[in-house]
Amino acid sequence: MKTAVLAYSGGLDTSYCLVRLTKEGYKVHTVIVNSGGFTPEELAQIENRAYELGSSKHKTLDITELYYKNCLRFLIYGNILKNNTYPLSVSAERMFQSIAIAEYAKSVNAPYIVHGSTGAGNDQIRFDVAFAVISPNSEIITPIRDEKLSRQQEVDYLQKNGVDMNWEKAKYSINKGIWGTSVGGVETLSSDLALPEEAYPTQISETTPATIEIEFLKGEPVGLNGEKMNSVQLIQKLNEIGGKYAIGRDIHVGDTILGIKGRVGFEAPAPMIIIKAHHLLEKHTLSRWQLLHKDSLANWYGTLLHEAQYLDPVMRDIEAFLESSQKHVSGKVKIQLNPYHFHLIGIESPYDMMQSKVATYGEENEAWDSRDARGFIKIFGNQLKIYHSFEDNN
Amino acid sequence: MKTAVLAYSGGLDTSYCLVRLTKEGYKVHTVIVNSGGFTPEELAQIENRAYELGSSKHKTLDITELYYKNCLRFLIYGNILKNNTYPLSVSAERMFQSIAIAEYAKSVNAPYIVHGSTGAGNDQIRFDVAFAVISPNSEIITPIRDEKLSRQQEVDYLQKNGVDMNWEKAKYSINKGIWGTSVGGVETLSSDLALPEEAYPTQISETTPATIEIEFLKGEPVGLNGEKMNSVQLIQKLNEIGGKYAIGRDIHVGDTILGIKGRVGFEAPAPMIIIKAHHLLEKHTLSRWQLLHKDSLANWYGTLLHEAQYLDPVMRDIEAFLESSQKHVSGKVKIQLNPYHFHLIGIESPYDMMQSKVATYGEENEAWDSRDARGFIKIFGNQLKIYHSFEDNN
Amino acid sequence: MKTAVLAYSGGLDTSYCLVRLTKEGYKVHTVIVNSGGFTPEELAQIENRAYELGSSKHKTLDITELYYKNCLRFLIYGNILKNNTYPLSVSAERMFQSIAIAEYAKSVNAPYIVHGSTGAGNDQIRFDVAFAVISPNSEIITPIRDEKLSRQQEVDYLQKNGVDMNWEKAKYSINKGIWGTSVGGVETLSSDLALPEEAYPTQISETTPATIEIEFLKGEPVGLNGEKMNSVQLIQKLNEIGGKYAIGRDIHVGDTILGIKGRVGFEAPAPMIIIKAHHLLEKHTLSRWQLLHKDSLANWYGTLLHEAQYLDPVMRDIEAFLESSQKHVSGKVKIQLNPYHFHLIGIESPYDMMQSKVATYGEENEAWDSRDARGFIKIFGNQLKIYHSFEDNN
Amino acid sequence: MKTAVLAYSGGLDTSYCLVRLTKEGYKVHTVIVNSGGFTPEELAQIENRAYELGSSKHKTLDITELYYKNCLRFLIYGNILKNNTYPLSVSAERMFQSIAIAEYAKSVNAPYIVHGSTGAGNDQIRFDVAFAVISPNSEIITPIRDEKLSRQQEVDYLQKNGVDMNWEKAKYSINKGIWGTSVGGVETLSSDLALPEEAYPTQISETTPATIEIEFLKGEPVGLNGEKMNSVQLIQKLNEIGGKYAIGRDIHVGDTILGIKGRVGFEAPAPMIIIKAHHLLEKHTLSRWQLLHKDSLANWYGTLLHEAQYLDPVMRDIEAFLESSQKHVSGKVKIQLNPYHFHLIGIESPYDMMQSKVATYGEENEAWDSRDARGFIKIFGNQLKIYHSFEDNN
Repeated sequence: MKTAVLAYSGGLDTSYCLVRLTKEGYKVHTVIVNSGGFTPEELAQIENRAYELGSSKHKTLDITELYYKNCLRFLIYGNILKNNTYPLSVSAERMFQSIAIAEYAKSVNAPYIVHGSTGAGNDQIRFDVAFAVISPNSEIITPIRDEKLSRQQEVDYLQKNGVDMNWEKAKYSINKGIWGTSVGGVETLSSDLALPEEAYPTQISETTPATIEIEFLKGEPVGLNGEKMNSVQLIQKLNEIGGKYAIGRDIHVGDTILGIKGRVGFEAPAPMIIIKAHHLLEKHTLSRWQLLHKDSLANWYGTLLHEAQYLDPVMRDIEAFLESSQKHVSGKVKIQLNPYHFHLIGIESPYDMMQSKVATYGEENEAWDSRDARGFIKIFGNQLKIYHSFEDNN
Repeated sequence: MKTAVLAYSGGLDTSYCLVRLTKEGYKVHTVIVNSGGFTPEELAQIENRAYELGSSKHKTLDITELYYKNCLRFLIYGNILKNNTYPLSVSAERMFQSIAIAEYAKSVNAPYIVHGSTGAGNDQIRFDVAFAVISPNSEIITPIRDEKLSRQQEVDYLQKNGVDMNWEKAKYSINKGIWGTSVGGVETLSSDLALPEEAYPTQISETTPATIEIEFLKGEPVGLNGEKMNSVQLIQKLNEIGGKYAIGRDIHVGDTILGIKGRVGFEAPAPMIIIKAHHLLEKHTLSRWQLLHKDSLANWYGTLLHEAQYLDPVMRDIEAFLESSQKHVSGKVKIQLNPYHFHLIGIESPYDMMQSKVATYGEENEAWDSRDARGFIKIFGNQLKIYHSFEDNN
Repeated sequence: MKTAVLAYSGGLDTSYCLVRLTKEGYKVHTVIVNSGGFTPEELAQIENRAYELGSSKHKTLDITELYYKNCLRFLIYGNILKNNTYPLSVSAERMFQSIAIAEYAKSVNAPYIVHGSTGAGNDQIRFDVAFAVISPNSEIITPIRDEKLSRQQEVDYLQKNGVDMNWEKAKYSINKGIWGTSVGGVETLSSDLALPEEAYPTQISETTPATIEIEFLKGEPVGLNGEKMNSVQLIQKLNEIGGKYAIGRDIHVGDTILGIKGRVGFEAPAPMIIIKAHHLLEKHTLSRWQLLHKDSLANWYGTLLHEAQYLDPVMRDIEAFLESSQKHVSGKVKIQLNPYHFHLIGIESPYDMMQSKVATYGEENEAWDSRDARGFIKIFGNQLKIYHSFEDNN
Repeated sequence: MKTAVLAYSGGLDTSYCLVRLTKEGYKVHTVIVNSGGFTPEELAQIENRAYELGSSKHKTLDITELYYKNCLRFLIYGNILKNNTYPLSVSAERMFQSIAIAEYAKSVNAPYIVHGSTGAGNDQIRFDVAFAVISPNSEIITPIRDEKLSRQQEVDYLQKNGVDMNWEKAKYSINKGIWGTSVGGVETLSSDLALPEEAYPTQISETTPATIEIEFLKGEPVGLNGEKMNSVQLIQKLNEIGGKYAIGRDIHVGDTILGIKGRVGFEAPAPMIIIKAHHLLEKHTLSRWQLLHKDSLANWYGTLLHEAQYLDPVMRDIEAFLESSQKHVSGKVKIQLNPYHFHLIGIESPYDMMQSKVATYGEENEAWDSRDARGFIKIFGNQLKIYHSFEDNN
């Protein structure tokens, strides 16, 4: 009997795949990957449903810590926001889910591997690429994509096969993740409409401004409000706190791997606060050259991650650069939370280059005198003087 | 008699220079450059004071339009915020003031050219470099820097020479400009304190959210709320509107040309709103490659401008790139203003690549089918498959 | 009757397409694009053959000057060698041929547009992309690719249809172009073999070293050995001269658009000499920042051109940058030609920054004194001193 | 008694410093740093001379292996040639010599540290920066720079103090190093003259072409002609072999840290051969993204190293990137040596992506079919089609 590993979420598309492939004689292993977006209750429900629908074996892979260690950590080091806006909430998560499923398929020597994506979006690329690279002997099966099935066709098929669940489409499609929850709706198909308040899964519940403090150790968030904690827990806690202020909401429009532009709403309180706080700490502790080169490399890291190229070796090279750059990025950052926005108050760090004993900006100091400054500027301007000394240089 | 051109602001340092050089037998031309930060009343006052203190000729150079055309325009094209924070409010302005003074000195063949900066900060570099490059035959005189004069020494000298004005130092030092007003105080010398509300020259006076619309034409802001207007006027108008909401405030810490870190507060409502709105319009209208390469070049443009290298020919080359990139950046952007923050609602543009008839994201479309997608991904993943096919590749 | 525009070269593949489509009832317009690689005699032969094989209309498009103006010029400005090796001889040419054919197809409203490439290489991508972008209403027909035809199948078909020509495959496949001639053979399919002497179409015929001089005006080659000439003619003349010395031969291995690595031999005397001479002139006349930023942008220009992205608007933006950078790149470069290699002797330019009156390297000069140098270095080292002042900084 | 550590080379300038400071009552430690350019005999001579001239303690620091490990290795990983020409022969070496001397001064708690550079060139910056950063409590003494001493003044002083050696200036100033020997002369002060044959210390002595093979392991050269050897020894051996063919000679013109242009001749057979061979191996074994990003970062590494910024932490970050990138850069490269030039024959590597079983360029293969190719190109061209679909887009 032919084993097929199915990337299963419990939604309509993957339920359809499960029933259909079972009927067609496949022994289907359903696999769900939790990278921090599911509660234990949700995972139990999904498991139950999988078995109800015919799964021969259901597997929950919890990769949250791995996801943090192999990806989120670098997104923090690099202050990575795609097009200066989007924390890559879904892009990063889907890539890691795809890899986990591919590795599972390889470990069970599955001749088939299945996903429920359509042919219209980015997710199919992340799945297909991870599957083909990691489990090259598994054939990829994608009924929804290949047959261009509509929701109604899927519902009808399931009903005909005795599955009578409520598959009504929600007004807003939500993908919940530890690094941000995406929100799609009729507004995100337009270019000019904002998402209404109710589209966001987390509603504002706190309006009194508050100050929080995040502690970083070599670039990683390790403490919140004076309490040390595991970085994953810190992110989850901060999502909760920031969510109450409705912080970190926005709509991003960006380039898909398919060459077209797409728009997605999101709420990502912890990612936005952590990235901005981390960036401020870096501005105090990194050299000018580090800041300049990190920006550009990190931009590429985000772009390539988004575009399903996480497995390219250049990603490991950029990670090596980013990790090396964090040596001094330790200290505490104070942030004020307000309804719908936050601002950075300041930092404290043993490596704060602004408070060095060597020299302080704008103050009289012992590091140099006016004669040094004159000499510096004279030589600093040499090339410009030479370039502009040619007569026709207008 | 020796003519000395003095970069004059009416403050203590440059007043000292004026009196001192006059006493020492120089014929001093006082020059003030208005790049949009002064009102006519302020300029008239400054002129009066200059003549009172002994100026042999006072000149007001209004370069606001030129400053927009040769600089601000490119800061908008490039969405330039130094270290993703600071619109270069003072850095850009001081550079252009320095150039204007150098050109004036050259036009009158001044053997001497004077500025009142100390030896501790960036401004001396902008002045010295512009003077040396543009008016290489003028000797640079800088009494404050060379003699490390304290405010008290200056006040005493002026008093001894019959100038008895009130030079009391304000609690916060303010530099008002069209592209942002900087704020320095005891807090900006620390790394961990925010500026208090009262430090900002513009106080919040409007709390009702409002929607505004900016129209861009090839990257330049040319209309506000349906009314076409000159870009300089638009910026000034928008500063006024945004200022009422206390929008665009922040503190930046960054690298000075002298190699040390400095911190500066600022309020810059129009720059922040325009740059974010312009960036959104670009995300809809530029190609992926344009977005990627613009970011990196614009980052350099801002860095080099900040570091007194505006006259380097590479700046003209980057400007050529940026200008070329704006061909399709036309359309309208809606922004919602709230107290202390704003968010972007959406855009409308004849070049909106998201609303093209060729293909639309996430929708079934005619541009390609599932077979095309499979082929695309198969080939797209080729290099990764090859790279990971080598056995030891872990 | 259905008009089909065929990109015709006179070789087996395109002859097959011509006969086959004619038989199938298409009215075939054969189009050959000369971008400098063909002699008038060759073009006349190709035209004759086209009519013999059934072309309903044959068109020779000479785009050599346009190709220089819209492409080669920028490859010179950018000193562009793919992976520091390959002058993009075929990549650039094929792109421009594809565009010319697409424009012709659009001008005659051709419902069909045909090329003879296989599905294995880069050329199909250049053709397909140019056709789809420029003439989106023409359907693309590619019999060789779609039916995976072998040479033998094509020869048999032609014979069956009364075409009995000699289609014997040459030992080395040659693509002659103004910007270099590519050479493929059994050795280029290996990773470890060099091409033998006889594989190169141009054999060495001159062994006496000689000195030549190229004059550049704003980056363009405009004179050779004291004689002003049109840049296209100069390139052709220099190919002839350099070819006698067997200069400019190499083998390149690089990434194809399809994600795999390919290897190609080439001889490109004029491109190699011009690019190296131009680069030397730039090292004397451009600012340090120009040199740094040009390198990186030009590298991208070459990569994107190679990868069939010439029509991306970012290419126009990079061209604007490159053109702007050439303002001072005027002067003469002396080069010594030897058998199989050449070296640069030196340059002469009114903008030579090395010979400026302002300052000269390594000499005592008036531009600064030792006190200035001490001041410069003191401040220049500020950030390093601060960074390394923290105790644990090992 | 005041201890002064002197960077001593045995030449006129540093001999002057030694005698002068001794006379002035300093206890002078002379230190010479061998980074591979000196023979044991030369070092013994220098030591003897130092004691003759009054050194209170002479120290020879051999840092060749350290220099390779901390610097040359990365120049190879990055294929670094400044402005695509110069292997940074002197720049890199002087930086490491400066650091070694600074560390020695710190280890002996020297209150003074001395170098013999003038105020005109780059070396003073390398010395001053390394001294100030690593041994911040040592005062820097530079008599030649501060007093603008001429050779004649120095010779006269030495003679007056009983030192009567032959200080005649050689026609060409030579700086011999493991990573290349620099050559300065009257020609290098011009922009248009080549160095004559006799200016080069190594004269051609072999004219029969020969093939050599270099083996690389993770980017490091570890074998020559089938014999494994230590990388430092390999470089030295290869300098000897290549030198006989007069390979690796050129003249570089580049930007100094002082903003002016300088020209330097050099012979560097091993660096040129190793870098080109290593680059070829990388073209076969790295991904397209690695090649693109390495180029740009490596260019910066070379520039910053040249400009005395080796101690900036960004250099460690780039090194981490470069080292990570070398994982697959193992294999053998064959090179043909000819008089005055060489060319690369080919490579052999277990990670050769060109010879993968997955797919091979230009061949019919199983990795994809024509339908896949059509799909790939259709989607690959999406964004261009969209961009060019707007009407006025000319």
